[in-house]
Amino acid sequence: MKQVPASRRFAVIMAGGIGSRFWPWSRRALPKQLLALAGDTTMLEDTALRLRGIVPPENLLIVTSESIRKPVAKAVPWLPASSILCEPVGRNTAPCVGWAAIEVRARQSDGVMAVLPADHLVSPLAAFKKDLRAAYALADAERCLVTFGVRPTEPATGYGYIRAGEPDPRRNRAAAVIGFEEKPTPERAKRFLRAGGYYWNSGMFVWRADTVLDAFAEYLPGMARLLERMDGQRKHGKIPEKTLARTYPRLGKISIDYGIMEKAANRAMIPASFEWNDIGSWDAAGALWPSDNLGNSSRGDVIAINARNNVVAAPGKTVALVGVEGLAIVDTGDAMLVCRREDSQNVRAVLEELERRKRKDLL
Amino acid sequence: MKQVPASRRFAVIMAGGIGSRFWPWSRRALPKQLLALAGDTTMLEDTALRLRGIVPPENLLIVTSESIRKPVAKAVPWLPASSILCEPVGRNTAPCVGWAAIEVRARQSDGVMAVLPADHLVSPLAAFKKDLRAAYALADAERCLVTFGVRPTEPATGYGYIRAGEPDPRRNRAAAVIGFEEKPTPERAKRFLRAGGYYWNSGMFVWRADTVLDAFAEYLPGMARLLERMDGQRKHGKIPEKTLARTYPRLGKISIDYGIMEKAANRAMIPASFEWNDIGSWDAAGALWPSDNLGNSSRGDVIAINARNNVVAAPGKTVALVGVEGLAIVDTGDAMLVCRREDSQNVRAVLEELERRKRKDLL
Repeated sequence: MKQVPASRRFAVIMAGGIGSRFWPWSRRALPKQLLALAGDTTMLEDTALRLRGIVPPENLLIVTSESIRKPVAKAVPWLPASSILCEPVGRNTAPCVGWAAIEVRARQSDGVMAVLPADHLVSPLAAFKKDLRAAYALADAERCLVTFGVRPTEPATGYGYIRAGEPDPRRNRAAAVIGFEEKPTPERAKRFLRAGGYYWNSGMFVWRADTVLDAFAEYLPGMARLLERMDGQRKHGKIPEKTLARTYPRLGKISIDYGIMEKAANRAMIPASFEWNDIGSWDAAGALWPSDNLGNSSRGDVIAINARNNVVAAPGKTVALVGVEGLAIVDTGDAMLVCRREDSQNVRAVLEELERRKRKDLL
Repeated sequence: MKQVPASRRFAVIMAGGIGSRFWPWSRRALPKQLLALAGDTTMLEDTALRLRGIVPPENLLIVTSESIRKPVAKAVPWLPASSILCEPVGRNTAPCVGWAAIEVRARQSDGVMAVLPADHLVSPLAAFKKDLRAAYALADAERCLVTFGVRPTEPATGYGYIRAGEPDPRRNRAAAVIGFEEKPTPERAKRFLRAGGYYWNSGMFVWRADTVLDAFAEYLPGMARLLERMDGQRKHGKIPEKTLARTYPRLGKISIDYGIMEKAANRAMIPASFEWNDIGSWDAAGALWPSDNLGNSSRGDVIAINARNNVVAAPGKTVALVGVEGLAIVDTGDAMLVCRREDSQNVRAVLEELERRKRKDLL
């Protein structure tokens, strides 16, 4: 299958999320994608650097929220300001993808764009790049909406699933998409794994800008009209902030999965040959860190005495654990979280309490 | 029984301990008696202030370690420097009491002195003062060694016990001491409680200086000789530091209980009518603090979500607990402890590890 030339390859990193599950490290002004959860660099920068050699830097766009424009720009200092698209208000993923698509089209009418969340972990790099090149080629050749499916390693209930046919070597290993399944119950997830042919929906997509805008016109016509109107008001190639501020809030709060992918006919799925981790909690983050022989994994200095399987994130401080097991312990200067690892997705409840107490300083 | 006039009443606060069980709050330079574990003032200052109205300030002595002279002086700024006796090296309680006794005798030949640990909690104040006055009178009238016994509320294994006879109203409720028992096994402690007549050894004593020095001469004659030699070398009423530095290290490492109290004949015990708490661990300290309706007690701001019976000491920081139970969580700027409440006496193991790692900054 014919490769897409680099000049026509674009990538859009979705970096608007608030990542409340990583409190107290994450705050409204410092969401998950701006944290260095896996290594020394931010998730966002990792995501951007992963594209080197595939997408020219000038073809890379980041969509984020106006409220975090500065820290985002700081995380990717080599990116021109014009490449950072700031949503005046958050509106789920469909508006974000739609806006990015008209921006890509404005730069390159036959551009092919990858859509990538800013806060996922992918490795090894070579496998990711190979799959991404295959997806660009497929999306360009077949004018289809390409998604990456991840072979499930456990009956996870935190992801949507894609049911797909057999991978076809003549179509760059792509498989026909049979259907999208929302986050399942544990029983249903187990059935998916037993049945086979089900993949985790990674939330990473590749398509031509014109292909996805056609899909918007068909499945989200109201949103498509508003996007085209925004596009028509460009001044010096740029959509004025006033236009954005007026129009963007009118775009529906709808996800690209629900709005387009679950309905479109021209879908294809490439089974990822890379490993994928969306690092959904402190529990998952801890699993990536160095650990001692009793399973205590940490970022920072830990003294563990008769303590097992804890996750500790407290840079710049010595943490002594005595006799405790299965805890996530996260410290910042002004706040600390101590929870059971299996409860680490429930951090949201802490944020709700902080809201009630009007503790804006900690949100 | 005749009251001892205030001018003859002395008190010696033993403030030389290193209180390693309160790490990371306590450090070598900031031991337990210098922490505000129960309220807003340090344990040492609380102990000193408790004596107001009974012992004139000029009759109050504090024995501590040379290494913490400054913070001790800061904790009781109203005390003249000459009232703070600094041991050049720590030597258990017998040398400390012996030195204090010769200091009291030098000030007042028929002085009666109370010996009080700097880091215990006592309440209510009125009951303590009543018992203390009774003890001064008894010690003066009978020339005996008076100890306070605390009626046990549980078969604790962390204290020594005193076996005593019936309290005698004609002797200010004093009881004859039958014997001293070392920290018992759980079974033995239960037997003590069933049998009755056993009291916790509070480590608080009252005696005339001459009485206790007679006991030193009888039961610790070597130490008594060295103490008298120190006493004989006073210049301007003060034992020179050179003398102390030379002689003090030669005093035996022996406790007043083992060296004198277990052997002396002229002993008496007053059953405490006050409540007594030696606050031996974070678990015990937490029990003194304000707590929410799920038993989470704290110094500082806590958000507890499905969390019970935790102790949190993290001033200046918000601590969120999610789904955890029975933990002690203690934070300082440079270190943090997370342990099970019932393990909170095992903090010593952390200090040993810090020693091994040569982390003097955290010791």
